[in-house]
Amino acid sequence: MEAIYQDIARQLAARMDAGEFPPGSRLPSVRQLAASHGVNSLTALAAYRWLEQKQRVVARPRAGFFAALPAASAAAALHRALPSPATLVEVDSRMSQLVALSASDVAVQLHMAEAHHSLYPSAELARRLQTALLQRPELIGAYLPAAQHERLCGLLQQMAAGWQMEVKADEILFCNGITEGISLALRHLTRPGDTVAVETPVYFGLLQTLAALGLKALEIPCTPDAGLSLEALEFALQYGPPVRCLVTVTNYQNPTGARMPDDHKKRLLALARRHGVTLIEDDVFGELYFGEARPTPLKAWDRDGDVIYCASFTKSLAPSFRLGWLSGGRHHAALERLRASSSLVSPALLLGTLTDLLASGDYARISQRLRRQLARQMEQVADAVLAAFPRGTTLRRPQGGLLLWVEGPEGLDSGRLLEAALRESISFAPGMLFSAEPRFRHCLRLNFGQPWDEAQRQAIVRLGELAAEQLRTTC
Amino acid sequence: MEAIYQDIARQLAARMDAGEFPPGSRLPSVRQLAASHGVNSLTALAAYRWLEQKQRVVARPRAGFFAALPAASAAAALHRALPSPATLVEVDSRMSQLVALSASDVAVQLHMAEAHHSLYPSAELARRLQTALLQRPELIGAYLPAAQHERLCGLLQQMAAGWQMEVKADEILFCNGITEGISLALRHLTRPGDTVAVETPVYFGLLQTLAALGLKALEIPCTPDAGLSLEALEFALQYGPPVRCLVTVTNYQNPTGARMPDDHKKRLLALARRHGVTLIEDDVFGELYFGEARPTPLKAWDRDGDVIYCASFTKSLAPSFRLGWLSGGRHHAALERLRASSSLVSPALLLGTLTDLLASGDYARISQRLRRQLARQMEQVADAVLAAFPRGTTLRRPQGGLLLWVEGPEGLDSGRLLEAALRESISFAPGMLFSAEPRFRHCLRLNFGQPWDEAQRQAIVRLGELAAEQLRTTC
Repeated sequence: MEAIYQDIARQLAARMDAGEFPPGSRLPSVRQLAASHGVNSLTALAAYRWLEQKQRVVARPRAGFFAALPAASAAAALHRALPSPATLVEVDSRMSQLVALSASDVAVQLHMAEAHHSLYPSAELARRLQTALLQRPELIGAYLPAAQHERLCGLLQQMAAGWQMEVKADEILFCNGITEGISLALRHLTRPGDTVAVETPVYFGLLQTLAALGLKALEIPCTPDAGLSLEALEFALQYGPPVRCLVTVTNYQNPTGARMPDDHKKRLLALARRHGVTLIEDDVFGELYFGEARPTPLKAWDRDGDVIYCASFTKSLAPSFRLGWLSGGRHHAALERLRASSSLVSPALLLGTLTDLLASGDYARISQRLRRQLARQMEQVADAVLAAFPRGTTLRRPQGGLLLWVEGPEGLDSGRLLEAALRESISFAPGMLFSAEPRFRHCLRLNFGQPWDEAQRQAIVRLGELAAEQLRTTC
Repeated sequence: MEAIYQDIARQLAARMDAGEFPPGSRLPSVRQLAASHGVNSLTALAAYRWLEQKQRVVARPRAGFFAALPAASAAAALHRALPSPATLVEVDSRMSQLVALSASDVAVQLHMAEAHHSLYPSAELARRLQTALLQRPELIGAYLPAAQHERLCGLLQQMAAGWQMEVKADEILFCNGITEGISLALRHLTRPGDTVAVETPVYFGLLQTLAALGLKALEIPCTPDAGLSLEALEFALQYGPPVRCLVTVTNYQNPTGARMPDDHKKRLLALARRHGVTLIEDDVFGELYFGEARPTPLKAWDRDGDVIYCASFTKSLAPSFRLGWLSGGRHHAALERLRASSSLVSPALLLGTLTDLLASGDYARISQRLRRQLARQMEQVADAVLAAFPRGTTLRRPQGGLLLWVEGPEGLDSGRLLEAALRESISFAPGMLFSAEPRFRHCLRLNFGQPWDEAQRQAIVRLGELAAEQLRTTC
């Protein structure tokens, strides 16, 4: 029987490749497939299961089998997207490799999505930690005492109210960085094999998380101007494979820096609701706004509790503290249970210190200073790129966050550019990391969270020269 | 077709109930079932899937379907095990409810598995944290610098070598408490529906984690004398349902306090190997030994890298820090990837402070002081229990950890005892929490990690009186 079902599977795959069944289209029923090959249903089902394992088809309960989208498997496709003799090729844990770059002796590091540690007030936080623990020795215990937990939730509610978002006191869950929040949300909402809509380009950490959970990424275009394309999303929801949920970075998206306009946020909510798609909002950069007002999260307009809102103090206060939090709407209780069995609690001492920083107004002061510095550095990096990079390079200056998305001239291969740059001790994140498809080869993501100095300026000048050289040799 | 497959499923369930297919036995193949009902294989398969959803049968790839054990679903069974009108009944998140008790105003709290915060050196740790951050401001960043990470791993290796355990430098992964380590190990090794062997009695947090992952618990008897019964395990592996892995608390088991003898550890390794069962070793209490030498983990004898060893500094240094770690043997790389997408990293500041505490010898001093205090308190609580509780009460004095397992006289209902105790502002963990089956109704777990004082003594006297009263009224 083994040979037969594999044979049937291979024939079906060939018909898909030939265009008879385009990506996302419905495939013959098990009975139809069985009848057309003169085999029994179990054999036909085995053929489908085999194709499912190979991520060529997607099964939907009570709907049958569908041809997978070409980029369906984030892991496989990430691997495929890589130029084979590149520096970063060995495994497909892209993020770990970029982290390893940080640990290396690369002189000018522009590849991460973290601001430099010198931008955070270590000495002030050190004092705060000590005071908190001396005054409240119970913070060495595993659990934040209930009264203190209540106080912290009250302060968070107050903070969110400042951006027009109402958060219920019993719908606040702290977690280890926003990574844990998003991972919990995905684990709660999906089962292996499900399809999750994401923005493209999208941060590679999310693609890795999806791969680790056995989920398929459906990439929806996102532009630096307005973020996620609602038109593309609507089309995908209508004609693509069934989608369980959408992860969207609404404010200062990673990597494009896009801020989704408020009316898009409202339209996205209505669209998701219409299609029964749960939204996971990743607002990790929302606190790093450069303008007058902090952008309002999409969650603010969620009346049905269907948005899982994830945020963090990681970027805006102290990366080391890993102070993520989420508000899960109608999924909240389930997320709390899942968290309890995944990592139990967040360090009580760090939560207690956060309470002090919020209550005293120190957090507001610390994050304002950080935002001003980031806004200055963004202009400095953007100016330098526009001056140094070859003609045809474009960028849009983000109004928050710490990432600059640079679209090089057509033909630029940012993977090869990175190899050349690393030889001169400069790093950045090449575009190929941000999609399972080779869509963003000519793009690069730069971090403007490093203090601006002459070495930075020279590194960007050099990147521009290397890009120009590459284009000359290619032509 | 709906009615037919459900009808077939119900008939099969009735045959299982009647004893034709006892728990754990192999059920007819899909083809046999189809033939005997004159339906096609897809319909027979649907019947099995339906029974699988109801947790009556268990599917094993390439082996077929098996009748589920009665206690197969930890979640369902936990629920079943509860007396309906009890105080703690509402949901089956038992741990969260016990945590809520901590937050309440119960005067004498003996229900948790944490030592009181006053046993930990808050002031000293506060100074250490401040110094670390002032001297190394980079610890405010998200990632522990590579050189510091290497140093910390070296210190851990040295520490483990002191207990005859060799740990490879590239097989150390820090995680958020041991809970995260065990959750990652289970997520890596299993798929929903799999069966995991656990000790019984076992800490309820593990039963909750299994339920959250859709796993079935197979409970293997464990005694205060020698821990896990290897005879029972061997029998279960031979005649029970296929088991994917075993979670075992080898040193000072929770709740029995049992320390597994070294020769049992070696035999368990051989047994697991013979049956292809991966071991997850939970050594969270190992550092709290009262004798001369710290017990050697089972992992020390693991030559094939098949044991996933999980440990933590939570109990022995600072509960608030959540400094868990694991060494995953041949599963290590996969666990690292899973962790990266689950919560990324542990707080660099806390890892950096741990390095200082290990290097200076302060950790050795702190944990020794803690062990001595716990050893004293164990004797005080044990003496008080034996003096106060009715005849027929037995206990074995554990030689480590912070938990005392008390077996009351037959007929004692510790659930009802807890209700009475809570009315007098005393808490403990009732036996029913430690199994999906109502095996330990007469038992209770007491925490001897609270500083011994007159209130504690009186609380235990009162518990003994309440137990005696209950037995009198019942008889």
